[in-house]
Amino acid sequence: MGTITKALELLNQFSSTRSEIGLGEFVRLCGRDKATVHRHLSELEENGFLEQDPSSRAYRLGPALLRLSAVREAAFPVRSLLRPIVVELAETVGELAHASLLQKEMLSPVFHADPRLHGTQVHFDESETLPLHATSSGLAVLTFAPETLRDQLLSQPLEALTSKTITDPTILQSMMSEVRGTGYSQLDSTFDQEVASQAAPLFGENGQVIGAIAVAVPLVRASSDRMRGITPKLTEAARAATRSLGGQYPDFPNAHRQIFKPTHIE
Amino acid sequence: MGTITKALELLNQFSSTRSEIGLGEFVRLCGRDKATVHRHLSELEENGFLEQDPSSRAYRLGPALLRLSAVREAAFPVRSLLRPIVVELAETVGELAHASLLQKEMLSPVFHADPRLHGTQVHFDESETLPLHATSSGLAVLTFAPETLRDQLLSQPLEALTSKTITDPTILQSMMSEVRGTGYSQLDSTFDQEVASQAAPLFGENGQVIGAIAVAVPLVRASSDRMRGITPKLTEAARAATRSLGGQYPDFPNAHRQIFKPTHIE
Repeated sequence: MGTITKALELLNQFSSTRSEIGLGEFVRLCGRDKATVHRHLSELEENGFLEQDPSSRAYRLGPALLRLSAVREAAFPVRSLLRPIVVELAETVGELAHASLLQKEMLSPVFHADPRLHGTQVHFDESETLPLHATSSGLAVLTFAPETLRDQLLSQPLEALTSKTITDPTILQSMMSEVRGTGYSQLDSTFDQEVASQAAPLFGENGQVIGAIAVAVPLVRASSDRMRGITPKLTEAARAATRSLGGQYPDFPNAHRQIFKPTHIE
Repeated sequence: MGTITKALELLNQFSSTRSEIGLGEFVRLCGRDKATVHRHLSELEENGFLEQDPSSRAYRLGPALLRLSAVREAAFPVRSLLRPIVVELAETVGELAHASLLQKEMLSPVFHADPRLHGTQVHFDESETLPLHATSSGLAVLTFAPETLRDQLLSQPLEALTSKTITDPTILQSMMSEVRGTGYSQLDSTFDQEVASQAAPLFGENGQVIGAIAVAVPLVRASSDRMRGITPKLTEAARAATRSLGGQYPDFPNAHRQIFKPTHIE
């Protein structure tokens, strides 16, 4: 692992539940020696990627990230293009909707909206990355990703996040052949035991898959009927999002076939 | 310069006017050898800090920045706390207002608002950093910054961005003694030949200066009267912003004295 990667991985230790990290905790989290970690932290801090609390000496993410994300959004306003589409999808289906972008071997959430119409809600954390093999968004992206990414991911041991996470590459491959025909994926309980979700891929200017848009539903109300009702609205949102990102949406031969019927309910 | 700094400086080459950069251009911009630059770019890309256009092979800022800036905002919602205050200030004074945060030896813009009431407007680019010695925001921050930062900055040769930029450390020091009493700074034509601006510092939880809030006015309408009218609204906004960021606003003995009267107009 290169020095730059090691330094950037220090930044990835932050999440919405871990917003300040001290030197000692970094050392524990990364399992590297203190002197190296300290040198990396200092360089990140000098460049505004971290800042240090003057009294506690703990580190937090720095203002350079705000500026660079604003530069990216100014040039490629993905978040602002996706926001109204995600909000409308969430309102139309009455459930939490979210969009995420492919980053390396995972998905980075970009935006989520929840109309909060029900007594139970899906907990969605925009600061958490979504694994490709364990989420419906990931499966939708992986299906249309370059073969190299698929091969790379499926040749590694896959982590079981719940007792239902599919870690067998053969099963994932067969699910992907189905997604190739329907244009959407559905999984339940594979990322969070209590959540079912449906996702459709988003395509960029060059026809490459760049992310996914998804609806997540608490398993208690994820009946076949409800999930079936979501599909046309989800795929319409994916089509609109792809168009606004400058891509072309493909036609899927089995777009109306219901797949991966949840087996846990009804 | 360390490897990490070299890599992060590649990210700083992006701006709202330069949103895609090819390998050759990076080499020219940084004056480093192609093999090193390419290795740094690849590591940044693998970690989602850059992405490469599949057809042109040019690089742009990657989705990891969106996620990390969302993590920072979730924990320290500086942008969302400052936004309404900047918007209200801009509307009250009828001119462009902006807030920026101290980052290393410059200021990183966080948010700006422009009511666009006039025929001419200040052009403000949120992706451009603001130099401490050449902007009213910078001067406000530098005045209250730790002495080490002031000494460090003033011991370097200072860049003249216009013919009016003050590059003499002795003059800057004497302006800062005045700002220490008034709690606000005013400069004209030092960053942009055609713009006057007034700024007040923002303080964080530990009493340290963390940034500034400012109003920028095209020089053609920056009369003494107009600038004098802005001061109480600007300092009220700085006070409100400091409070919402958890800081305490100091009292300034000469808060009502007008300083740095523009000499170019009236």
